[in-house]
Amino acid sequence: MTSLAPHHDGSPLYVSDLAPSLGDVVTLRLRVPSGYGPLAAVRTRSNPDHEPEWTDAASLGTIDGWEWWEAPVTVRNPRHGYRWVLVHEDGRVEWLNQSGLHTLETLDAEDFALVAHPAPPAWLSEAVMYQVFPDRFARSALADERPTPDWAIPASWDTPVDPVMPARSQQFYGGDLDGVIEKLDHLVSLGVNLLYLTPIFPAASNHRYDAASFDRVDPLLGGDEAYRRLIDAAHARGIRVIGDLTSNHSGDRHEWFQAALGTPGAREEEFYYFTDAANTEYVSWLGHASLPKFDWSSDELRRRFVDGPDSVVAKWLQPPYSADGWRIDVANMTGRLGSVDLNAEVRQLLRRTMLEINPDAILLGESTNDAASDLQGDGWHGAMTYPSFTRPLWGWLSEPTNAPYLDAFGEEQTEPWFFTQPIGGIPRYTAAEFAAAVVRFTAGIPWRVRLGNMQPLDTHDTARFATNAGPGTIPLAVGLMVTLPGLPVVFAGDEYGLTGIDGEASRTPIPWGTEAEPAVAERLALYRELIALRHAHPTLSTGGLRWIHVDDDTVVFVRESADETLLVLASKGDADAAIPPGALPVAAAAEAVWGDAVLAIADDGSALLSADGPAFAVWRLAGVAVPAPLPVAVVHADEVSRGVASADQATPAEDVESA
Amino acid sequence: MTSLAPHHDGSPLYVSDLAPSLGDVVTLRLRVPSGYGPLAAVRTRSNPDHEPEWTDAASLGTIDGWEWWEAPVTVRNPRHGYRWVLVHEDGRVEWLNQSGLHTLETLDAEDFALVAHPAPPAWLSEAVMYQVFPDRFARSALADERPTPDWAIPASWDTPVDPVMPARSQQFYGGDLDGVIEKLDHLVSLGVNLLYLTPIFPAASNHRYDAASFDRVDPLLGGDEAYRRLIDAAHARGIRVIGDLTSNHSGDRHEWFQAALGTPGAREEEFYYFTDAANTEYVSWLGHASLPKFDWSSDELRRRFVDGPDSVVAKWLQPPYSADGWRIDVANMTGRLGSVDLNAEVRQLLRRTMLEINPDAILLGESTNDAASDLQGDGWHGAMTYPSFTRPLWGWLSEPTNAPYLDAFGEEQTEPWFFTQPIGGIPRYTAAEFAAAVVRFTAGIPWRVRLGNMQPLDTHDTARFATNAGPGTIPLAVGLMVTLPGLPVVFAGDEYGLTGIDGEASRTPIPWGTEAEPAVAERLALYRELIALRHAHPTLSTGGLRWIHVDDDTVVFVRESADETLLVLASKGDADAAIPPGALPVAAAAEAVWGDAVLAIADDGSALLSADGPAFAVWRLAGVAVPAPLPVAVVHADEVSRGVASADQATPAEDVESA
Repeated sequence: MTSLAPHHDGSPLYVSDLAPSLGDVVTLRLRVPSGYGPLAAVRTRSNPDHEPEWTDAASLGTIDGWEWWEAPVTVRNPRHGYRWVLVHEDGRVEWLNQSGLHTLETLDAEDFALVAHPAPPAWLSEAVMYQVFPDRFARSALADERPTPDWAIPASWDTPVDPVMPARSQQFYGGDLDGVIEKLDHLVSLGVNLLYLTPIFPAASNHRYDAASFDRVDPLLGGDEAYRRLIDAAHARGIRVIGDLTSNHSGDRHEWFQAALGTPGAREEEFYYFTDAANTEYVSWLGHASLPKFDWSSDELRRRFVDGPDSVVAKWLQPPYSADGWRIDVANMTGRLGSVDLNAEVRQLLRRTMLEINPDAILLGESTNDAASDLQGDGWHGAMTYPSFTRPLWGWLSEPTNAPYLDAFGEEQTEPWFFTQPIGGIPRYTAAEFAAAVVRFTAGIPWRVRLGNMQPLDTHDTARFATNAGPGTIPLAVGLMVTLPGLPVVFAGDEYGLTGIDGEASRTPIPWGTEAEPAVAERLALYRELIALRHAHPTLSTGGLRWIHVDDDTVVFVRESADETLLVLASKGDADAAIPPGALPVAAAAEAVWGDAVLAIADDGSALLSADGPAFAVWRLAGVAVPAPLPVAVVHADEVSRGVASADQATPAEDVESA
Repeated sequence: MTSLAPHHDGSPLYVSDLAPSLGDVVTLRLRVPSGYGPLAAVRTRSNPDHEPEWTDAASLGTIDGWEWWEAPVTVRNPRHGYRWVLVHEDGRVEWLNQSGLHTLETLDAEDFALVAHPAPPAWLSEAVMYQVFPDRFARSALADERPTPDWAIPASWDTPVDPVMPARSQQFYGGDLDGVIEKLDHLVSLGVNLLYLTPIFPAASNHRYDAASFDRVDPLLGGDEAYRRLIDAAHARGIRVIGDLTSNHSGDRHEWFQAALGTPGAREEEFYYFTDAANTEYVSWLGHASLPKFDWSSDELRRRFVDGPDSVVAKWLQPPYSADGWRIDVANMTGRLGSVDLNAEVRQLLRRTMLEINPDAILLGESTNDAASDLQGDGWHGAMTYPSFTRPLWGWLSEPTNAPYLDAFGEEQTEPWFFTQPIGGIPRYTAAEFAAAVVRFTAGIPWRVRLGNMQPLDTHDTARFATNAGPGTIPLAVGLMVTLPGLPVVFAGDEYGLTGIDGEASRTPIPWGTEAEPAVAERLALYRELIALRHAHPTLSTGGLRWIHVDDDTVVFVRESADETLLVLASKGDADAAIPPGALPVAAAAEAVWGDAVLAIADDGSALLSADGPAFAVWRLAGVAVPAPLPVAVVHADEVSRGVASADQATPAEDVESA
């Protein structure tokens, strides 16, 4: 399917203000291919307070084969949804929203959306994240002097990961924060500029999601001072650092939990859901006794944990640590249990505290499935989520082997799972289905929030992508990660070509010293080049996204700004994509910037993209030519004026429409 | 498109308990056409507290060409979403949710859903509603004795409706409640059993949406006593009565507003959004000064209006009135303004009061566009909404004329609207698009709530359907209204064949006495027969819905229960639909119960439906043969046991999965 269709998205080409306040008038633009009409009218349809409001668009004229339309919209709600309607002179009606062009009326949930909550820090969209699981990343000499904790099963750096209980959570390699410091230059050489550390608080497991305290860094990792050293060293290299916080639960060794366990009347008993009078039974994460679930109806829990400058959340973002934000574990379940749903309150409170303490910090929430309902811009800047990029990518580019494997209990399992889903293993998507899945799971998320969504190939909770990657598809996967809108994420070790069949087996110690091996060197170079590509072209961070061609094997899209157009081809098989005139900038002098593929642009502006697959290629073309704006300035309103009447007008029923 | 596909919906064939409590185990069933697999597994996937939970389905064996699967699901949240996954032995994966069968993962919002909030009264699904706009319905002799109010422009019963201001809202015909009483036998003869009256409180307009009080019935309508007489007389005939309440605003003559207007410090000033110190400027509905908007942050407003036995909401549901429920005007905007959204609190409070006072009363909310976000079962039993039935029906069956018309200000307008949407008039849908739109706008609503959604051809707020109906399509429209899941609604006068180009022009006085005119007699007979059909076949009220065939001109579906199958054909043109074996009950002895069309069932179970269009036809077939349940009783849990751990199990990290 090759499309040349009316287009709008949330990028600066089309939206005059990505960080409006309530009451502001934002100017929106739509581009329509020449000859697409004739159109009798183009309008926006918003839904403030759940009641439709319409504005007329005016034509700005045609430039480079596109007629541009412009309409004002007043931002009425913190999440202000809108869609476009195109009324054709022949009576046909088309609606354009985030899921595409429709002849039928569309759903509120798939509207484009402006967000009037405080904007995320600008640096988030320029970030490339590197995820480190501290026990497995790098071990400094200091680690040798530390005693092995009671729960740990020591392992040397070259011991294979044992995914069977109890080693699964107790196998202990002793990576530490000074080890991370020693390897920061590796991060610099990759080009990453944001380091995400999974938990570093004291715990009784190698993953440390069972925190025993939020008040100090695990001495096994080097303690508070090592964390401070690490952040300082990272900042000195232009790398920001965020931590990982479990807002759904603590560990059962946590000081709050220990104060309440078996002690009715303890101040902290309201922090958890005890279910018996003796405080010995309690609600926990999926029944795991070591992870007691927090009860967020407790004001005291809120005060200690997330509310204000003395809270846990605030502490680590302030000097002397000055971390740059948080990734929140199990954000999707936080504050939710049965008939109780305090999730919005908690995430908004968390965000408010961060705004007070350090407005330049970011907040990402784990929400591994459909994340749209929690991602409307009121709390999380983005999500660690899989259905909008990672899983579709696997579906397209993997070659499932479905070999038997050992589960956590050492039992051989023959039915493969897929990202904790018992669906018979990795599904098989065409390229077109990959694109459709990306659209489906991003259509419900405002553009601004979408840019903050983590876009990993894999994480510490999943198999590694390389394990099942089809031959030659790694460049496609890394390439799509850095060219589609969202936050690229390298899970440490992927750049060394590591594999692993699940989230446990993937927590492999980094094979430092293998960089000169040809396969490793090649993989490292791939990551370095593609991350450099992302940085060299800001349009890949914030530019618009327009899908141009999808078929069973190939996707072609552009990322666009007024400065440049990046044309991207990804094809699992041989590619042969005919692009109609108008889809690419006129008289485009295409500069090949990555990959081996052929782009032939004819005099009429049509183009042919071809490649021997698998292929990933990027070209740089001219920016999008945009018409001058209408002579209407963006208005920052002093108040929401809609619906305000005065008593002087209030003569009986004179202006009453049927209500 | 003719489909024979796996099927599940919220009806009793597939769901063991439509009114579960939190913690209950509900048994769900899926039917799969024989030979559809082979399937390696069938599972349910729920998302309690936003974290996936899976159950395995067991096969119950094959009966009548369908393999049935059964799985238990524990109800974890008040709205408990779930989907089915079918894992094929060849590795293909299919997901089934309320929008259909998908190869890609699906959205939470389109899950099937169980609802653990208190169930609506059983009578709601058996109701056929009749909507009366009191000023225009019937005028008793008592009306002649009443003085004309200050705001009114008197009109005799046969004066044409004047849609131009000021007559638009002030033209006064003087219909009253005793007039309604005199015509109750007409309602009985139609077969309707639920009377919905638009507002009857004192006001300064013919529509009375600008209430001056909620404490008494307008004397122009006969006052409190007339309302009491009407309800008693209706109840005596088996007809229930619901009122209409404006929870978004009052009129500017309302006693609460008058107490606060210009009187800073008045108790009632917090009921409204005054925007100046003198209490003379205020927020109103879409800027109409006569409709000041309520501020639901006021506890005192809640107390007087909706909370508890002394509230407005309670008063009219109790003796001596004993009305049977409320339709809430502008429910969609209620409690919403800018950054404030108290809608859920207000609707839940409203519902709680009604449960305390009269649990047999119903609560419907006006939400004229995509209503899904407010319709998850926590408040409204259903919505007065248009995109899920009414607008698609118009799109398919209308023949737009798009003639010029006078607007409220007497200006001639040439651009037609469509249900307040400036989209160039009525869109043009195929039959398949009609079905697709119905699916799109019901997929986000739990089955139980969908059954309470009003399903009118038109209302007091719209043009009348007959105005633009294509030749011969009225029987299709009325037929679909009574055969698709939802609450049939007759807007008074439709059964007389009235027309009207918008919501004002449609408020025509009923032409009593014309019943013997052939066109009227025919239309009356149509309504009587089709409403009788609805009552004769309870499966049309509560049975499952399975679309069997859709093409450009024709839709074919069945409503199904264990007792009977109703096969429905609606075709705008000639129909010729081939139905594959298995789609209809085996050895079905089809009884034609309405319409002229031919159903030929072959020995192999395949069928051919044909008709000269336009056509609407219904056949009764055998009920769906269902297998015996598995030997597992439905469990009513005493507690939500998921995630409960005890300290005894809490040995360090022994059962910790990565969190």
